[in-house]
Amino acid sequence: MNSIKDGWFAEICEMWPGRALNIKVTKELYNKRSKFQDIKLYETESCGKMLTLDGIIQFTESDEFAYQEMMTHPALFSHPNPRRVLVIGGGDGGILREIAKHDTVEEIDICEIDEDVINVCKEYVPSLACGFDDPRVSVHIADGGIFIKERRNYYDAIIVDSSDPIGPGEALFQQTFYEGMKSALAPEGIIAAQGESIFLHQDIVEKMMRITKSLFPVWGYACVFIPTYPGGNIGVCLGSMEHPLEKPLRVPNKAMQDKLKYYTPEIHSASMHLPAFAARLMDKVRNNR
Amino acid sequence: MNSIKDGWFAEICEMWPGRALNIKVTKELYNKRSKFQDIKLYETESCGKMLTLDGIIQFTESDEFAYQEMMTHPALFSHPNPRRVLVIGGGDGGILREIAKHDTVEEIDICEIDEDVINVCKEYVPSLACGFDDPRVSVHIADGGIFIKERRNYYDAIIVDSSDPIGPGEALFQQTFYEGMKSALAPEGIIAAQGESIFLHQDIVEKMMRITKSLFPVWGYACVFIPTYPGGNIGVCLGSMEHPLEKPLRVPNKAMQDKLKYYTPEIHSASMHLPAFAARLMDKVRNNR
Repeated sequence: MNSIKDGWFAEICEMWPGRALNIKVTKELYNKRSKFQDIKLYETESCGKMLTLDGIIQFTESDEFAYQEMMTHPALFSHPNPRRVLVIGGGDGGILREIAKHDTVEEIDICEIDEDVINVCKEYVPSLACGFDDPRVSVHIADGGIFIKERRNYYDAIIVDSSDPIGPGEALFQQTFYEGMKSALAPEGIIAAQGESIFLHQDIVEKMMRITKSLFPVWGYACVFIPTYPGGNIGVCLGSMEHPLEKPLRVPNKAMQDKLKYYTPEIHSASMHLPAFAARLMDKVRNNR
Repeated sequence: MNSIKDGWFAEICEMWPGRALNIKVTKELYNKRSKFQDIKLYETESCGKMLTLDGIIQFTESDEFAYQEMMTHPALFSHPNPRRVLVIGGGDGGILREIAKHDTVEEIDICEIDEDVINVCKEYVPSLACGFDDPRVSVHIADGGIFIKERRNYYDAIIVDSSDPIGPGEALFQQTFYEGMKSALAPEGIIAAQGESIFLHQDIVEKMMRITKSLFPVWGYACVFIPTYPGGNIGVCLGSMEHPLEKPLRVPNKAMQDKLKYYTPEIHSASMHLPAFAARLMDKVRNNR
């Protein structure tokens, strides 16, 4: 378990051996073990509040916008009329906040396994947990893998805001879970799932993309800058039953665009053009090699 | 000065307060103060060899390709026929290695202020220093700001591979230096300069882009993923006397493309589409606000 030394939190993990982002913390706001994981919340010197689960950074307020926006808007703007959206994980509320910016959306379900994450963020991090305030949001405290099986042909978009595939998030990286998501989608449905780092986890990314490709006629991978995630980047794994993903079908109106800090229709497409080594990996998946 | 604790190098610097990438080192290969700076070279657990100058990471072998390729190829592929290229800084040889992949190039000058950097890399890091082996390369040990004034209308491209604007690299971020580069360029010339992180150094980026815009009819900023630089990203500041920058004029042939790990014609364009907050900063510069 990572701990604080001389005021620095060190994100040491077997998933990125030999490298560790360190963040200077000024105050511990919360520190308890839930039924599922160690939850810690810190005030930091230069990154705002920071949540860790089992010692891994889940967000810092300084750059969470990059992740939340890119997990949400490429999926929703690739759909002609997203009305029902499901978030799996995402207990901090940040993705709910982004979904709520879409006027087409009528229902937002969130299925989070760990109620304590929601409660901590509601108490200490209103900048993200404000997502829960939208009247379209319904909260389900449940296992995403079980919840997903109870819905059929229902959601226009499903967003999987999971932690890494060690700990409670592990099941969300499996074929069975992706099959469940596909069944829960309406005919034109789209999924977006946390896709790790193409620089650090090519094996995980390759596995996710092979699963996605086996189930979705249209698929893709977006690469997002985010300084406080491992390697300074995170991927979004996208799958679509019908609509193309590389260019948005619709674009934000001016009022919405003015509120966004990362997403634009241009960055939507640009983020799906990958560095040569990553493009080659996607070609390998595309050609079943 | 950063030092090693329990086998971890910590990149602590006032330029990114409160955050520090830590890298596990297994061996110190070199550690001396040159006339200009502290030079240290390490073997690391998972990032290959790593060079630091005054405690700041200059490259790790694991991801240097991202930086070297994106500092070089967008500039050279935006030029119709680059024959003479100058590198300022870049004593590790990585950018020379990339320039040498271009058949059009006849002359490669490098002006590095610190001969010791070249010698250390030649002795310990052949994967980068191989750039010096090309017969088109001439090495000049000199101050870039002075060297640049001795050339007029000469280079088709100038690449500024500087360290950060604290220490010996400081002069390379000034208006006078950019004016010198412009004078040294042939009529269709293009510059590319190390452009810091748009996430961490918006003030520096804004200043560089205002200078570039004041001197070059065409200009732009590319954002590059590179896990071991601060925030996991680095910018490239581009200026062009004539040719557009957002799309390459020419593309690598298949043999060359096969050797590249980051650059593609698609990522050339994609990297110049910036996240909304950064696009707004560029709009501000564009409109002189």
